[in-house]
Amino acid sequence: MGSTYGKIFKISTFGESHGVGIGVIIEGCPAGLEFDADFIQSELTRRKPGQSRITTQRKEADEYEVMSGVFEGKTTGTPIALIIRNEDQRSKDYSHIATQYRPSHADFTYQEKYGVRDYRGGGRSSARETAARVAAGAVAKLLLRKIGIEITGYVSQVGGMKLGKPYQELDLRKAEENAVRCPDPEMAEQMFEYIDSVRKSGDSVGGVVSCVITGTPVGLGEPVFDKLHAELGKAMLSINAVKGFEYGSGFEGVNLLGSEHNDAFYTDETGAVRTRTNHSGGVQGGISNGQDIYFNVAFKPVATIMQDQESLDQDGNIVVVQGKGRHDPCVVPRAVPIVEAMAALVLADFYLRNKSSKI
Amino acid sequence: MGSTYGKIFKISTFGESHGVGIGVIIEGCPAGLEFDADFIQSELTRRKPGQSRITTQRKEADEYEVMSGVFEGKTTGTPIALIIRNEDQRSKDYSHIATQYRPSHADFTYQEKYGVRDYRGGGRSSARETAARVAAGAVAKLLLRKIGIEITGYVSQVGGMKLGKPYQELDLRKAEENAVRCPDPEMAEQMFEYIDSVRKSGDSVGGVVSCVITGTPVGLGEPVFDKLHAELGKAMLSINAVKGFEYGSGFEGVNLLGSEHNDAFYTDETGAVRTRTNHSGGVQGGISNGQDIYFNVAFKPVATIMQDQESLDQDGNIVVVQGKGRHDPCVVPRAVPIVEAMAALVLADFYLRNKSSKI
Amino acid sequence: MGSTYGKIFKISTFGESHGVGIGVIIEGCPAGLEFDADFIQSELTRRKPGQSRITTQRKEADEYEVMSGVFEGKTTGTPIALIIRNEDQRSKDYSHIATQYRPSHADFTYQEKYGVRDYRGGGRSSARETAARVAAGAVAKLLLRKIGIEITGYVSQVGGMKLGKPYQELDLRKAEENAVRCPDPEMAEQMFEYIDSVRKSGDSVGGVVSCVITGTPVGLGEPVFDKLHAELGKAMLSINAVKGFEYGSGFEGVNLLGSEHNDAFYTDETGAVRTRTNHSGGVQGGISNGQDIYFNVAFKPVATIMQDQESLDQDGNIVVVQGKGRHDPCVVPRAVPIVEAMAALVLADFYLRNKSSKI
Amino acid sequence: MGSTYGKIFKISTFGESHGVGIGVIIEGCPAGLEFDADFIQSELTRRKPGQSRITTQRKEADEYEVMSGVFEGKTTGTPIALIIRNEDQRSKDYSHIATQYRPSHADFTYQEKYGVRDYRGGGRSSARETAARVAAGAVAKLLLRKIGIEITGYVSQVGGMKLGKPYQELDLRKAEENAVRCPDPEMAEQMFEYIDSVRKSGDSVGGVVSCVITGTPVGLGEPVFDKLHAELGKAMLSINAVKGFEYGSGFEGVNLLGSEHNDAFYTDETGAVRTRTNHSGGVQGGISNGQDIYFNVAFKPVATIMQDQESLDQDGNIVVVQGKGRHDPCVVPRAVPIVEAMAALVLADFYLRNKSSKI
Repeated sequence: MGSTYGKIFKISTFGESHGVGIGVIIEGCPAGLEFDADFIQSELTRRKPGQSRITTQRKEADEYEVMSGVFEGKTTGTPIALIIRNEDQRSKDYSHIATQYRPSHADFTYQEKYGVRDYRGGGRSSARETAARVAAGAVAKLLLRKIGIEITGYVSQVGGMKLGKPYQELDLRKAEENAVRCPDPEMAEQMFEYIDSVRKSGDSVGGVVSCVITGTPVGLGEPVFDKLHAELGKAMLSINAVKGFEYGSGFEGVNLLGSEHNDAFYTDETGAVRTRTNHSGGVQGGISNGQDIYFNVAFKPVATIMQDQESLDQDGNIVVVQGKGRHDPCVVPRAVPIVEAMAALVLADFYLRNKSSKI
Repeated sequence: MGSTYGKIFKISTFGESHGVGIGVIIEGCPAGLEFDADFIQSELTRRKPGQSRITTQRKEADEYEVMSGVFEGKTTGTPIALIIRNEDQRSKDYSHIATQYRPSHADFTYQEKYGVRDYRGGGRSSARETAARVAAGAVAKLLLRKIGIEITGYVSQVGGMKLGKPYQELDLRKAEENAVRCPDPEMAEQMFEYIDSVRKSGDSVGGVVSCVITGTPVGLGEPVFDKLHAELGKAMLSINAVKGFEYGSGFEGVNLLGSEHNDAFYTDETGAVRTRTNHSGGVQGGISNGQDIYFNVAFKPVATIMQDQESLDQDGNIVVVQGKGRHDPCVVPRAVPIVEAMAALVLADFYLRNKSSKI
Repeated sequence: MGSTYGKIFKISTFGESHGVGIGVIIEGCPAGLEFDADFIQSELTRRKPGQSRITTQRKEADEYEVMSGVFEGKTTGTPIALIIRNEDQRSKDYSHIATQYRPSHADFTYQEKYGVRDYRGGGRSSARETAARVAAGAVAKLLLRKIGIEITGYVSQVGGMKLGKPYQELDLRKAEENAVRCPDPEMAEQMFEYIDSVRKSGDSVGGVVSCVITGTPVGLGEPVFDKLHAELGKAMLSINAVKGFEYGSGFEGVNLLGSEHNDAFYTDETGAVRTRTNHSGGVQGGISNGQDIYFNVAFKPVATIMQDQESLDQDGNIVVVQGKGRHDPCVVPRAVPIVEAMAALVLADFYLRNKSSKI
Repeated sequence: MGSTYGKIFKISTFGESHGVGIGVIIEGCPAGLEFDADFIQSELTRRKPGQSRITTQRKEADEYEVMSGVFEGKTTGTPIALIIRNEDQRSKDYSHIATQYRPSHADFTYQEKYGVRDYRGGGRSSARETAARVAAGAVAKLLLRKIGIEITGYVSQVGGMKLGKPYQELDLRKAEENAVRCPDPEMAEQMFEYIDSVRKSGDSVGGVVSCVITGTPVGLGEPVFDKLHAELGKAMLSINAVKGFEYGSGFEGVNLLGSEHNDAFYTDETGAVRTRTNHSGGVQGGISNGQDIYFNVAFKPVATIMQDQESLDQDGNIVVVQGKGRHDPCVVPRAVPIVEAMAALVLADFYLRNKSSKI
């Protein structure tokens, strides 16, 4: 019972990796929004498998169908249902793990929690579900664009290779120009080679996706529990393989003194209130303050590796789980649009929730 | 509209720092739980101000009153309302900031979002609100104890001083024996001196609270959005001054290869399924796997410092915000029970939600 | 876990009849609303016991305290907590029913559901809880007044005595001029005498409260489940002793042909779209159409009567439940402000929810 | 934002009458339930158009596809998505009302609320949406059967023709044996003729569906707002064309004295607590007491009639809305499975919610 996200701009995803398909219902999208069907497809394409040799070689077109909520090119205020049928399901690739528990996968926990599981490709626990999030996030992005909010993700770390520059020193548009989605072309090249070497060794590696949100008006976020950064954190941590979230100064901020960390207010030439530094990451007291929002999301190395691993089956017998199937050696390049999508969903929801703040 | 947390074991907090009082309604606590009133008070006492010279010198007894939901020493299944009246309110300490925006506080964002704010002591954005969370968390702990779950928090970092040991090598019970709540007595002493020196210089410093949860049954957590670690993350990030959250291998896990990071399953002598390592932090696919859950929470340096800072007032004039009032130079010692309380609320809710997983 | 009502303008009530007190948290009330404390008290006074000899003779001042969410006479957008302490608790009046199941009361069902119950005065199942609703509803009324919505309830039936006139033919302001709250003075007098005779015979009798809402803008209500009339229905049915709800043509409308029942649209002199008849009761497709909303709420005879009744105790023994205590012989006069309060809560919530309907 | 129903067993419907299709996601259905696909189809068939000459002559197979949540014939605890594609869409039948407001339809209110509407066949406001409810309700019925709960609806009134017998005197199984779904064959015949005559005159007529629920355990319902009968009321009122709801003694109960209305407890031969009468309708204090639950639902005459009606278009011009299309002259025969489905959804949700009532 945890497949719904959001309070007003609310999504419910469904579907398993090797079932009939996956999809999402978006409830609460305001009526009258131009439904840019091509943009939504382009976002799905950014996430889809088979983009380069460092992503999984599964072939899925990830084309979606609009079942409801759109009429004559505009949203109608009623639920928008988007479905994506599964293709290229080599379910028999998974018959060998029907009763095995793959290490650091969700096989064991799903089996114990539900007493039954669709083992094919991880079923519901597969990252395939995130395609539905990306589709919904694309609709949220359309809404956010109307109010000037832009969300840009990029890869800032792969294994030990860390892009040591703050986002202000990067040209983030370059992230989409390479397969890694790192905005520094040289670093991107090195990361690519590294991921490829990991792939060849049948292993996997972790990484960090960073994200910057510009144009947010002051006032988004609902303290004391639904703080803007708290919802962003939950949204990111709900993505497969995520192990950590930090925003603004993050874990590094711990090392600073208050006198160093505090962001001084001033008024810019337009009369807008701004801060001279932005350790706050665009959020104060859980509410956006109009400065850039930025955060980092840590992804673990993908659990599926092309190596044999000792494990257990459902009966407690020791087994060897074989490394088979087609998987990403490093998840972060394809995770960038997912991170953006989840951020868009969070902001769209807070934008609508904020409409009731004042008389 | 964000003052409610939880789906079944659900809390709603209310109250401002310098208003009449604060409080919480707990809805969804099962009937028949022994209501250990003294334990709840002891948890509040762990959080209350004035515990040592490195915490704020405000005097608040933080005694609570049970208004409903308990009869003859047991919960009745109806809402439990707990209230704590405010005392020692030196509201005039705050008259100087009635129209000023304190740097890195929530004054500006609350004013913009709501058009009005109770400026006294930060009003609703004050960490005083967390006393209500601790009271509710104590009730959650009572429930969790019935099923064998124990939650232990401790300070693992203050500024640059980092306790570089994994929790398994520490005697966590020692954390409560010193004012810093660091389980390593020597490190605790150094941290204490450091915080005290920061205090004397009128400054503040950040820190990290770590937390370990033992005894969790397999099956808690509700994918795909309400994953156990995602809710823990949100709950922690909703605490004042938190900038980051990581669980299991966390941000460090990024550096590992999949073959290093995967946790191998085995069966222990009792026949229970266990993992040889625990990079997963007790959670796989968003569901508890029965191993220890552990995570870190980063706190920024407190925004209130005893130094003058340039800022703006509500009319956009440049002003000097004076360092006044009684505040913590480092928030982490008092944050330990808050972290535990939020973790308890998350687990209690998932425990009840899990009752519907299977036929 | 059912003590919360509303999605944006959301209330959570707590408290038992003979505990420390009762209260309510209002979350989601917009900031900047003038908090008319006297009006709220006057609404509580309309509901309080002891208004005349046909209402219970319990003495409760029902004075409330504002614990949070209001600053300098205005709402701040943070949770508003209102508490009312219990007085005049003759709990020993109830000791005789500690283990008995009063007929048609909630003693048996609470005991079975929760395994424990606060038997004093019905505990949580007592209609005393509705005082919290009235307080919250008064705040909702303050919000609705800002947009021109007025809600007026009145008694239209007591036992078999039915006020056979449509509301348009009545001067509803007269309802508050008599103890029964029936706007027809003659009928009110007869109803009063009848209720008083029922009271003297130690019995009780049912009744109907009718309610009219004027000034509702077009657009309130959220199909397909949260239709305006469906939420009104739930809200009314959640009031103690309610057995039925109908709006517009209601159960009588069944007898009409479509050609008789349909409400023809026309444009009035101001250019506003109106309907010539209003069998729709101001709601079409679950959304307000700008015409008057009107509905009826059926209340059963109060279960507590001053007569001995055979029943069971918790152990299954046959017992005689004695008629004791101070109770209303007919609930509808005091139910009028409760019906209005619940209607106000429904409309306030839909008013805020509707802010997200369109781009 | 009102297309979701339920707290744990939660459904979200989507789709418009003449769009691609309709469907539903069921979240929170426990894992391990046998998914009886044929039963679900049979329930849809009970609701589908074209059953006899007194129902609409539209031809829709209403065959559904399971997209997720079921594996090897059992539910997996993950969201169950069911979709039904639209067929036989004579959308051009509706081009004449693209800008017209049909009397007592939702055209005007949708247009005003959303600024845009899918006018074809009523779009989202069409009763076609209820097919999704019936599919979801069938799954709920499968769950309820496991615990012995059976739900039976029937037609008890058509226009002024009222089946004047309590349900105990009827053989409810006979309801499914005739096109009207009235369990009294003679009355059914008369109702059929009457509806047919109304149809021939191009008019429509209202009716009442009654419903009986047997086998409910004690304890379902969550006071004080989510009372069992309050949720039943909301669920019923959310069905298209419903104008009223009453349970147990209902509006008639108003006329009784408390001494007549109270249900005396006794213990039956099995030791179970029962009541001698059941004016309470199986619910006391908002919680099921184990007796039969019964209620009535009033449906207005369908707004679409085969007669010309004066109305307005979107620009405020007076127009004549022509009677066209294929519609039910009386909605109650096809409404029976919808009433049952909604009741099943309410009970399934309360059954799961009740799992957290006690330690």
